[in-house]
Amino acid sequence: MRYATAMSRPLAHPGVASMTIAGILYALSDPIRLAMVRELLRTAHGLNCTETACRLKVAMPKSTLSHHHRILRESGLIVSERHGTELTSRVRTEELESRFPGLLQSVIDAYDQECATAGRRGARRAS
Amino acid sequence: MRYATAMSRPLAHPGVASMTIAGILYALSDPIRLAMVRELLRTAHGLNCTETACRLKVAMPKSTLSHHHRILRESGLIVSERHGTELTSRVRTEELESRFPGLLQSVIDAYDQECATAGRRGARRAS
Repeated sequence: MRYATAMSRPLAHPGVASMTIAGILYALSDPIRLAMVRELLRTAHGLNCTETACRLKVAMPKSTLSHHHRILRESGLIVSERHGTELTSRVRTEELESRFPGLLQSVIDAYDQECATAGRRGARRAS
Repeated sequence: MRYATAMSRPLAHPGVASMTIAGILYALSDPIRLAMVRELLRTAHGLNCTETACRLKVAMPKSTLSHHHRILRESGLIVSERHGTELTSRVRTEELESRFPGLLQSVIDAYDQECATAGRRGARRAS
């Protein structure tokens, strides 16, 4: 499956049948990518790289952010479309749900829980 | 947390609070390790390396299997105990459930579904 505008290098996205559980889990096995997916899930129309970086509140080179986007895209987790010089990405929620029902929500719930526990620990240390 | 018998090199296992979602997902982001965990979940008392290799029906060097066990152990997914010269491993089901409720079952369900789909495709090609 290819999403592209005219005159741009096409971006490769796997079809639903090519998504693998190992690939999805690898793409989600990084705290930054987990945070990216959670932020993307909170938007209806996706986010471009600049918006994603702002929401993550983590300073990182644009090339690093692009690398994370590429891993998410190649696993099938997100779709990216070019708008001018920017790529806008969103989570392929429905396709993921059709391929692996409940999986993504389960991972995001676990990540939320980990963040909440870390937050409580941080608050205890600070008090 | 350390599980060991006298006179053996102790095996390091993370405590429940040290398990991370990224670490768990990385450990599960490999088809062999997914298959290992599924086989271990099917046993009440765990499996040693020889038994695991037999059940996987995949020929691989013992060192490769040990490497996969180590990654699973260090993520917190399994606990290994020495019995003579063999290590017996089992999934830390209750501890995982307390840390990330529903996560492991959700991953194994997705893996089962992927295996079933691949099986149906294989059968169609063969017919």
